[in-house]
Amino acid sequence: MKPSIPKGTRDFLPSQVAKRQFIFSKIKKVFQTYGYVPIETPVMENLSTLTGKYGDEGDQLLFKVLNNGDFLKNADAEILNNKDSKKLVPSIAKRGLRYDLTVPFARFVAMHQNNISFPFKRYQIQQVWRGDRPQKGRYQEFFQCDADVVGSESLMYEAELVKIFDDVFRNLNIKVKIKINNRKVLYGIAEACGIADQFVDMTVAIDKVDKIGKEGVVKDMVERGINEDTANKVLTFFDVTSLNNLEGLFENSPTGLKGIEELRTFHKYLDTTQTHNEIAFDISLARGLSYYTGCIVEVESKDVNIGSIGGGGRYDDLTSTFGLKNVSGVGISFGAARIFDVMEELNLFPKEIDQILKVLLIAFDETSHEFAFSLLSKLRDAGVSADLYPKPTKLGKQMKYANQINVPYTLLIGSEEISKETFALKNMETGEQSAYSLEQLIKALS
Amino acid sequence: MKPSIPKGTRDFLPSQVAKRQFIFSKIKKVFQTYGYVPIETPVMENLSTLTGKYGDEGDQLLFKVLNNGDFLKNADAEILNNKDSKKLVPSIAKRGLRYDLTVPFARFVAMHQNNISFPFKRYQIQQVWRGDRPQKGRYQEFFQCDADVVGSESLMYEAELVKIFDDVFRNLNIKVKIKINNRKVLYGIAEACGIADQFVDMTVAIDKVDKIGKEGVVKDMVERGINEDTANKVLTFFDVTSLNNLEGLFENSPTGLKGIEELRTFHKYLDTTQTHNEIAFDISLARGLSYYTGCIVEVESKDVNIGSIGGGGRYDDLTSTFGLKNVSGVGISFGAARIFDVMEELNLFPKEIDQILKVLLIAFDETSHEFAFSLLSKLRDAGVSADLYPKPTKLGKQMKYANQINVPYTLLIGSEEISKETFALKNMETGEQSAYSLEQLIKALS
Repeated sequence: MKPSIPKGTRDFLPSQVAKRQFIFSKIKKVFQTYGYVPIETPVMENLSTLTGKYGDEGDQLLFKVLNNGDFLKNADAEILNNKDSKKLVPSIAKRGLRYDLTVPFARFVAMHQNNISFPFKRYQIQQVWRGDRPQKGRYQEFFQCDADVVGSESLMYEAELVKIFDDVFRNLNIKVKIKINNRKVLYGIAEACGIADQFVDMTVAIDKVDKIGKEGVVKDMVERGINEDTANKVLTFFDVTSLNNLEGLFENSPTGLKGIEELRTFHKYLDTTQTHNEIAFDISLARGLSYYTGCIVEVESKDVNIGSIGGGGRYDDLTSTFGLKNVSGVGISFGAARIFDVMEELNLFPKEIDQILKVLLIAFDETSHEFAFSLLSKLRDAGVSADLYPKPTKLGKQMKYANQINVPYTLLIGSEEISKETFALKNMETGEQSAYSLEQLIKALS
Repeated sequence: MKPSIPKGTRDFLPSQVAKRQFIFSKIKKVFQTYGYVPIETPVMENLSTLTGKYGDEGDQLLFKVLNNGDFLKNADAEILNNKDSKKLVPSIAKRGLRYDLTVPFARFVAMHQNNISFPFKRYQIQQVWRGDRPQKGRYQEFFQCDADVVGSESLMYEAELVKIFDDVFRNLNIKVKIKINNRKVLYGIAEACGIADQFVDMTVAIDKVDKIGKEGVVKDMVERGINEDTANKVLTFFDVTSLNNLEGLFENSPTGLKGIEELRTFHKYLDTTQTHNEIAFDISLARGLSYYTGCIVEVESKDVNIGSIGGGGRYDDLTSTFGLKNVSGVGISFGAARIFDVMEELNLFPKEIDQILKVLLIAFDETSHEFAFSLLSKLRDAGVSADLYPKPTKLGKQMKYANQINVPYTLLIGSEEISKETFALKNMETGEQSAYSLEQLIKALS
């Protein structure tokens, strides 16, 4: 049997694990400095929690887990007879794999509302699963890194979360552009153009501007039933770059004006802080997901053209579907896989990031091997990451292994070294070799 | 809709995440000191990888993931008509959730054999899923922490892995007994009693001795078709506590003698090191899983009666099912959930383990709130984990929140503090309050 893994999934070799951990630890550090606490939710959620939250397409892409045991027992004979897959699902699968971290978080907040204090600030770094067609950079199993605050409408959090983006990408040495908009501003545009009832169609079209250009957006709107003149009028708003100019155009849109006010309050907070990346108002930023209701944000690498590497926004009432009403939330998400790719392309990972082992002991004969094992234990007891080749085989073979595992030092041990109680430490890069006592070794390698 | 999660799964609140991370970080640290490198494998594996590896019962307990799209399209009409759940599975589910970390590791080694160097020492800390009936301390979704070496038969690794158990539990402050045996010794007993052909029945019965006692083991053997006199003879071996005495009884069992030799070599290595827990030969240790072929080990807490909190052993040829022959392996696994329970019961987690946030800023009015946000950013920029209540609401309400989130310090900010540029830092435990400049604050809270 030829071993394989499901399409869209990946094995991670040690160096890849180390690199991913490097990214996660930088993100976690900043989350914690900003007062976010970690939670974890199960990989399997009830399908009733997940279904209907991600639109029809999302429901299709959910991975469903077959009930254990005789799952067909209570299945409807007619549905089986008709081979109606869609209708059969509810009777044979009651669980599914997490599709994102936001819906499980909303479920968590509603379920544990009496054990948490609001505002509740949590971060969560876990995998999610989507049955998308796998392609370069898109997997069926991947990590999300989210931070959200629920239970406060303060725009201070929008400023804080943008600052988190600024901090994390600075710490990772990735130069980014952070784009800001507000869904209420987009609604103001729809109102000003008289298409408030086609708001969703408008935003879905606008959302594609990076891919299909302005003309494409007009075409897309027209296809969605928006009058061509109106669609062109929508586009004129793209040239507005200041909130002051926008204000005049929103005279008859209270929602639009509210959006402007929110952006101003957000800036009032943000401007009291020091930031290191470009942060710019972008009226064409729409964020596809329709649950956002206030400020929205998206992050792009300035050096690698790979699309969004982070994003987020304000959403009202996400937990109401789980019975907890009037809880406003705002959150951001880091695109871990794309950040990984950007770091690789720009060569930003520290050299030797996966070099955990410090020294490999190499013994010349059986007696030396036993001695080497006891020396090894002493090094490890002192906290030095050390290993011993399992057999006192030919020196060349042991050295070859040392090179393969990329260990920085080897320690040669034979009868002479044992009697003198000094050991030859070899720097594998330079080839230099020096004699050390055990005590000196521990000092040198710690 | 009342929010819920599937039976046998859990949410982890911040303090639980912190405690689990504490355990994992201690284990990881030791794994790395011993030269083990991390890998990660997908949660979903092909069912062809998993099926048939865990016995019939295991196959029943595997979680199977429904194929996406019209999964019934190619299902056999007759199977559907007969509602034959078992026969339907292969045509509607090609993926399943990981059941342990060992089989995916074997698959990994076979698949990546050209990209890794042998002996290959890996650790892996990931979740696994089993459709067992949930009960106290037993979940359907839980973590395993494994370390394995493949590609060497050296008994040095058995000694090293026992030393890892000794180190980790010492670092966690859990006193343990580490029990050692060898499956070849058990085979020797079967040979000496003339029931080599009933070896598996014998070991399965012996494996239950802790639960059902010696008489129960005899009864169990008899039920499995072993002659009662023979069963009693097997039991007489339980009184043998030294390898020397055992040697005489194994005159006609080369396998039994090999087992004794392996245990002696293991001890030769281990005895050159310093250990801190009781390590004892236990001839009644059997380890249920039948893939072990050499030394086996199991760890018990001395203070909490909760069963095995770690175990492992040598297995030959685990990767041959994936096309890679003659690769011997040896590994151990930590029972993270039980270790968590032991730590809780013995109160071994550090106090305030989940106290990440250092200080909560509390503002008296709107102007102070804006100022406080800029002060907050400066604290965070200096690496201090800090937060600000989102609104300058009543002092009592803000203080109540500070108490709820268990923050050690609050910082009070009003117009007077701003004009004087000194701020009142309050120790929430003692109630003490002192005035600090920003610079002093950063020093005091770092």
